[in-house]
Amino acid sequence: MTNNRLKGNAIIGQSGGPTAAINATLAGVIRGARACPDIDRIFGAVNGIEGILNETITELGTQFRGEDDLEALAYTPAAALGSCRKKLPAYAADDPTYRKLFSIFAKYNIRYFFYIGGNDSMDTVAKLSHYAQMQDYDIRVMGVPKTIDNDVCGTDHTPGYGSAAKYIAATMQEIIRDCAVYTVPAVTIVEIMGRDAGWLTCAAALPRRYCGVSPDYIYLPERPFDYTSFFYDVEAALKRHPNVVIAVSEGIRHADGHYVGEGSQSGMVDIFGHAYLSGTGRSLEMAIKQQFGTKVRSIELNIMQRCASHLASKTDIAESVRVGMAAVEAAVRGATAQMMAFTRIPGDTYAVDICGIDIASAANHVRCVPDAFINEAGNNVTDACVDYILPLCEGEIAPRYEHGLPVHFVIDKTPVVL
Amino acid sequence: MTNNRLKGNAIIGQSGGPTAAINATLAGVIRGARACPDIDRIFGAVNGIEGILNETITELGTQFRGEDDLEALAYTPAAALGSCRKKLPAYAADDPTYRKLFSIFAKYNIRYFFYIGGNDSMDTVAKLSHYAQMQDYDIRVMGVPKTIDNDVCGTDHTPGYGSAAKYIAATMQEIIRDCAVYTVPAVTIVEIMGRDAGWLTCAAALPRRYCGVSPDYIYLPERPFDYTSFFYDVEAALKRHPNVVIAVSEGIRHADGHYVGEGSQSGMVDIFGHAYLSGTGRSLEMAIKQQFGTKVRSIELNIMQRCASHLASKTDIAESVRVGMAAVEAAVRGATAQMMAFTRIPGDTYAVDICGIDIASAANHVRCVPDAFINEAGNNVTDACVDYILPLCEGEIAPRYEHGLPVHFVIDKTPVVL
Repeated sequence: MTNNRLKGNAIIGQSGGPTAAINATLAGVIRGARACPDIDRIFGAVNGIEGILNETITELGTQFRGEDDLEALAYTPAAALGSCRKKLPAYAADDPTYRKLFSIFAKYNIRYFFYIGGNDSMDTVAKLSHYAQMQDYDIRVMGVPKTIDNDVCGTDHTPGYGSAAKYIAATMQEIIRDCAVYTVPAVTIVEIMGRDAGWLTCAAALPRRYCGVSPDYIYLPERPFDYTSFFYDVEAALKRHPNVVIAVSEGIRHADGHYVGEGSQSGMVDIFGHAYLSGTGRSLEMAIKQQFGTKVRSIELNIMQRCASHLASKTDIAESVRVGMAAVEAAVRGATAQMMAFTRIPGDTYAVDICGIDIASAANHVRCVPDAFINEAGNNVTDACVDYILPLCEGEIAPRYEHGLPVHFVIDKTPVVL
Repeated sequence: MTNNRLKGNAIIGQSGGPTAAINATLAGVIRGARACPDIDRIFGAVNGIEGILNETITELGTQFRGEDDLEALAYTPAAALGSCRKKLPAYAADDPTYRKLFSIFAKYNIRYFFYIGGNDSMDTVAKLSHYAQMQDYDIRVMGVPKTIDNDVCGTDHTPGYGSAAKYIAATMQEIIRDCAVYTVPAVTIVEIMGRDAGWLTCAAALPRRYCGVSPDYIYLPERPFDYTSFFYDVEAALKRHPNVVIAVSEGIRHADGHYVGEGSQSGMVDIFGHAYLSGTGRSLEMAIKQQFGTKVRSIELNIMQRCASHLASKTDIAESVRVGMAAVEAAVRGATAQMMAFTRIPGDTYAVDICGIDIASAANHVRCVPDAFINEAGNNVTDACVDYILPLCEGEIAPRYEHGLPVHFVIDKTPVVL
């Protein structure tokens, strides 16, 4: 970290899966950068690091007439700049890519790079900042976390998680009420995103605190899944009431490491080598049908859980804007090779501190749901877990609606001509 | 229709699939009945006609402290009284059931019966009112339509449709934005409810009017589905842009009458003999994967499209309350064997009249999307269709939230002791 002032242009990119809050962070970075005398032009990398390599770079700083536009952007789902899933190779293995990137940084006089993304994007931040140091190119590279998965290390939670959790909790309450209308025994499986960490699925428990309803069971990837115990659980629930509702992470695995949903989509992997899943809920549906012969249905919350910005958490959106602004402030003060992180301030009222942490401690690790948040039987979450999640979902945003639909802000992606 | 005053008790039941507005109609009937001097006690049939047969009848009139409670009920999803899928047999075939029902009506001095339901429930209203006439039992039996399917004849639209349409349109906008973030060619299939009528799927077109996005194609059950044309459509769309989004009704059929989704769930039928579908989106997903080898995903909006009351249409909820109150007013004035219906008042500003129509003209028919609402190629809807749906989705409700989640009203279903 240096204390020298660094003047020049900034570029912002978004990477990885969309969330309902990633544009709130973008709005925060833009707001922070516009207020900063050391930053001249604010560029947007269209489709993340790919957009820098292709020089599809747009002028962002002049697109927003005022706070109204930035607020509309903050309430717009998905990555407004476009995203990518490109993982940079090690520089030892592919020096030309790094040389190209840095020649473009130089061409656009980019001295600040803000990358909003998840675990894989923090890896990009780490690599770029190290390369910059090696090349003695003066640039401050900052990561701002976003992921609905909440699985980034070094931060109390991630921007985007609170909104997804609120959508899941609210939808779970609605689904349970819907399922309760008939007297015929029926099992409903709700499949929730989460390949390695069960944070999103934990949010299904929230209605139990104040709404008087909750799923009967919650199964997370943090515990091995076993059909014998599962059938035992379901049988017990069917004895208690006719309408059984179960929340399950897409990534639950058997003790041998095989995914429960593997039957349907085995062998497919995404670009990072993660197994591609889509059949967990359906596998359980078929197993219950066979075991009990009852009516059974599976529901995938699918991408709605990450893009339902109309139901975003006010706390999450406000924090997502703040963390973007804080990244600019930290960089301008001299920080680089950092990821912005939340620390929960102890006390009765929920509050967070925001500060930068060493990127190396954040990248490439997955933060799982801790033991204290999972009950002994491994089929539900504890009250401590509910305590942790609830404040992240507090508050409702008031997006502008026109003709019955929310108004989104669309970024002009026309490439800038230098 | 008689003009005599009829004094006694009222009973309300809910039947068929839940909607986000069926409790708004319940709130309207309760409000109307409480204001009516001819109606003494207001009972609720728990789980519809089944609740009358089992005498699980609760006292409704005294459960609501005031307008706040009725408003919370109006914003609560699913049938708060519980529902059923029981279709009454013909009275010629099963006189004992009718005798039992009418002995219970007499026991509870029920002179007003309001049944909130879809097509099959209107059949129950028709049968009960005819039987009452035959038996000379003085009761006024009124049907109040509700169904997200919008397929009831004799009414401009059905209560519940506007909220489901708003959810579908808003979610479609969010999904299209989410799908647009990557540059890799991908097809997304969004499967929407609608076995025989494509009304719900039509709502996917709404964002095209003011939001600048729309699904590439919309396929409805009103047109035969053909894989050759479908592949032709998808190929053309993939040439236009990388992110293709398609909305499709669960009930699309081939020209020979077989459901497209039949492969996965053939032979299963619900209690009314309707084919049970669940694989339409997935069938198309697999077909596209095979034909084009592109990334493809299918999304089922599933029961969220009928229970997402947090995003209900203000117009729909207000009309659903009004139609419940109007049913009481009509019955008290002497109407029976009627279904309440909306008539759109011609003019530049959207407005509806509410009146009762002969139940025989409503029950057991399905109202499909008219030809004028479907484009010539049969792969999208016309502007006239968007004009028709838009006003039904106008306005946002402001449900009360506590601790981040909407507050629902839970009806006490304890049976009344006479």
